[in-house]
Amino acid sequence: MMRIDVLTLFPQIFAPMHASMMWKAQDHQLLDLQLHDIRDYTQNKHRTVDDTPYGGGGGMLMRVDVVVAAVEAVRGDDICPVILLSPQGRVFNHRIAVELSQQPRLILVCGHYEGIDERVRELVITDDISIGDYVLTGGELAAMVLMDAIVRQIPGVLGAEGGADRESHADGLLEGAHYTRPAEFRGLGVPEVLKNGNHGEIDRWRRLDSIRRTWHNRPELLRHAALTDAEKYYLATLAMNKK
Amino acid sequence: MMRIDVLTLFPQIFAPMHASMMWKAQDHQLLDLQLHDIRDYTQNKHRTVDDTPYGGGGGMLMRVDVVVAAVEAVRGDDICPVILLSPQGRVFNHRIAVELSQQPRLILVCGHYEGIDERVRELVITDDISIGDYVLTGGELAAMVLMDAIVRQIPGVLGAEGGADRESHADGLLEGAHYTRPAEFRGLGVPEVLKNGNHGEIDRWRRLDSIRRTWHNRPELLRHAALTDAEKYYLATLAMNKK
Repeated sequence: MMRIDVLTLFPQIFAPMHASMMWKAQDHQLLDLQLHDIRDYTQNKHRTVDDTPYGGGGGMLMRVDVVVAAVEAVRGDDICPVILLSPQGRVFNHRIAVELSQQPRLILVCGHYEGIDERVRELVITDDISIGDYVLTGGELAAMVLMDAIVRQIPGVLGAEGGADRESHADGLLEGAHYTRPAEFRGLGVPEVLKNGNHGEIDRWRRLDSIRRTWHNRPELLRHAALTDAEKYYLATLAMNKK
Repeated sequence: MMRIDVLTLFPQIFAPMHASMMWKAQDHQLLDLQLHDIRDYTQNKHRTVDDTPYGGGGGMLMRVDVVVAAVEAVRGDDICPVILLSPQGRVFNHRIAVELSQQPRLILVCGHYEGIDERVRELVITDDISIGDYVLTGGELAAMVLMDAIVRQIPGVLGAEGGADRESHADGLLEGAHYTRPAEFRGLGVPEVLKNGNHGEIDRWRRLDSIRRTWHNRPELLRHAALTDAEKYYLATLAMNKK
């Protein structure tokens, strides 16, 4: 069972983690998710967790003494990744999700307000992760995104039909098109190949459609994809047809 | 006031949108957030929203008839972006957040299960957005991330102390270090320059620290940053010291 401890000033924001796949993972004893309120680790009587920045500039920062006390109390003598969610970190991706899903324990620290005292990074943070090149109000949504992407990689969580290995990014390509009933809607049908029951042909069509979508939407991903000679030829015809 | 309509199979997951900055934006009449349950737009008596994919492969897909009916009912005669959250879309970033914050209305469609019938994209989707190169259980967390990043860019939402323009990614650089009380913690102090009250010096230090952090964590971002000659010289000394 994987254990994830989340340190936050707003534990109630994590309500979505009690639904859907995250709930199933906990119910099946594959995940132990513990939420901790950073405010419970203050030493002062007003339970102050933030203060104004040195040098001015407005906004409030989370205090180093409070956050370090919280991390140390939760971590105990354990040695495990202590991840700060912040826009300054390395950019999260599928490969990092798979790596982190193999850890027995993770501690996630959610920044809030304008940021966090830099000394928190020096003293207790082992990894600084950003979920993308945009700014969020706090680390809470980022922590939920991280957990969702990580937990679905834990063996047994998705079940047999889940197939996490066929998804976008699992093989470095975007997933292609999928269709379900009705067979026709407003004049739009379903590709014939998907209805003929020939699974070899279906697999080939899906693979090429996946390459086609990646080439249209995210061509830079193709640089690192493992393609056969036939697939490279298909890619070349796509590129020629664009001109 | 900006209006955002969210179409989802799990409206209850959006509980975090009633907290923090998102709540303030709604309370101050700067945002009108409407959640719609896609299941309410089914025509069949079992309220079925999904079905198995043509060509096999497991998993369930959201049906085109149901999703298109939901989008059309919510959109009415309005012309506005209809955004699908999916791992196949263009990658969300700060620039897109600023652009979308200027729209009077957005409709967000959250995929779930293994995906969505491709014809939904052809018929009603105007923009396909991914929040990063990882796979999530559904579009719900992605929609919340998008809304948080967009809504904080609406004038008036953050208030005077917010300063969205000084944050990471706003000028193409990562934010540098910040410090607050206590002045010393476990032998770690605060840079003297931040305590001397010389705001010209403080601004220069912060700018160079921002460049330094970007160079260490995300050097590729510096290619598009606007740097003065003095800043380019500083960057060159950083690069030399690494060797």
